[in-house]
Amino acid sequence: MPADTALKTFKLTIEYDGTDFHGWQRQKNDRTVQETIEKALGVMTREKVVVIGSGRTDAGVHALGQVAGFKTRARIDAESFLKGLNSLLPPDVVIRGCERVPNEFHARFDVKAKRYRYRILNRNIAPALGRRFVWHIRKPLDTAAMADGAAVLLGSHDFKAFEGVGSPRAHSVRTIALSRLRASHGGRLSYDIEANGFLRFMVRNIVGTLVEVGLGKLSAREIQNILQSKDRSRAGATAPPQGLLLMTVIY
Amino acid sequence: MPADTALKTFKLTIEYDGTDFHGWQRQKNDRTVQETIEKALGVMTREKVVVIGSGRTDAGVHALGQVAGFKTRARIDAESFLKGLNSLLPPDVVIRGCERVPNEFHARFDVKAKRYRYRILNRNIAPALGRRFVWHIRKPLDTAAMADGAAVLLGSHDFKAFEGVGSPRAHSVRTIALSRLRASHGGRLSYDIEANGFLRFMVRNIVGTLVEVGLGKLSAREIQNILQSKDRSRAGATAPPQGLLLMTVIY
Repeated sequence: MPADTALKTFKLTIEYDGTDFHGWQRQKNDRTVQETIEKALGVMTREKVVVIGSGRTDAGVHALGQVAGFKTRARIDAESFLKGLNSLLPPDVVIRGCERVPNEFHARFDVKAKRYRYRILNRNIAPALGRRFVWHIRKPLDTAAMADGAAVLLGSHDFKAFEGVGSPRAHSVRTIALSRLRASHGGRLSYDIEANGFLRFMVRNIVGTLVEVGLGKLSAREIQNILQSKDRSRAGATAPPQGLLLMTVIY
Repeated sequence: MPADTALKTFKLTIEYDGTDFHGWQRQKNDRTVQETIEKALGVMTREKVVVIGSGRTDAGVHALGQVAGFKTRARIDAESFLKGLNSLLPPDVVIRGCERVPNEFHARFDVKAKRYRYRILNRNIAPALGRRFVWHIRKPLDTAAMADGAAVLLGSHDFKAFEGVGSPRAHSVRTIALSRLRASHGGRLSYDIEANGFLRFMVRNIVGTLVEVGLGKLSAREIQNILQSKDRSRAGATAPPQGLLLMTVIY
């Protein structure tokens, strides 16, 4: 590579199959998406590059449009990073886009909103195809009740009751711009949620709670009470990771 | 298990993720779907059960609705086979249905029609998600021309030119009831074909040919000439297996 030049910042849009990753964030001994991309950037730039994601995704969670930023002094342009990274990365992570951004860009602090999708397969028989991308639920779900429950979440609420235990944030009020459950043929359910931010496990805890509504264990309007209680123990169990997909990050 | 009783015949509807199978048909040293189901039936019935599929699928090809039949004297009913097999089978193959049928039923000879789907992802960047279920093509495809080419195949034709070399059938005329290519967002293409029978590699050879049309190497109307030539070397290359999905078998 040619000699170093001025510091530049790049923004990456990343798709990954989370099945064989221990999540986004670098860890000591486990394979993670962040570390995998940092290694490839290290090869390209001969620098020790730090990649900052828009936020973590947990082990087994997938992404169509995760966003991350990195800074480098290497004399490489965005198009060359895109091609070079994709030739170096393993098949379960690809860079969908690379653009140069102002040095002020911060992939985590500048996030305006994120959108996730969660997929459920509601049928008696487990799936063989696509089993790594859905939560399979055998008992019949009342999808109309779940859709009602999803709608209750729209607007600004304190989501303390839907936050993973042991990782509290100082502020737990979030604004939900989209919260929609759709059912299609063959028992396929798809839940889309967009918010200005998410607490740890928030989507999976919401999905676990909507499933309780679908099973008739909770009514849709009780979700309002759960929000107000700020009590994690009143919401449903955490839905498994493989149904979750980070769709887009909005800046 | 209770003592043996009269011979009974059962029909299975089977879903499998073909990624880690060397196709349907039993082989000496490789893992196949047929052998996997026969083993599980052996455990349940304590007999050496032969499972007859509607036809082979090649290594890496998937199925949502493969059909197979087997005969047994074991005193086990259809519902118990369904539950028992699904508890014994590995996660990449599931039995979606099991029903008792007349002893005359033959899973291969009685087939009236089959429907396949082939999926293509046409975009610049390789997919990380779902990469085991599509053929990724970088160069832009003219999907309108491909749809025209697909329509040429409707009706009865001699498909000799689309038959895999080295596995000729005595009769190579087949009747195509459905041959439709659809394009949706994000470069997703889906090709559906239904016929009263298929020659070896026929769907994948048709798809390879439609892709040549999409790339502008062939015109849609030349497909008619290729059919008439009965010359395999004039049709396109065999599309890779992972895009192919056996949807249903009709009896």
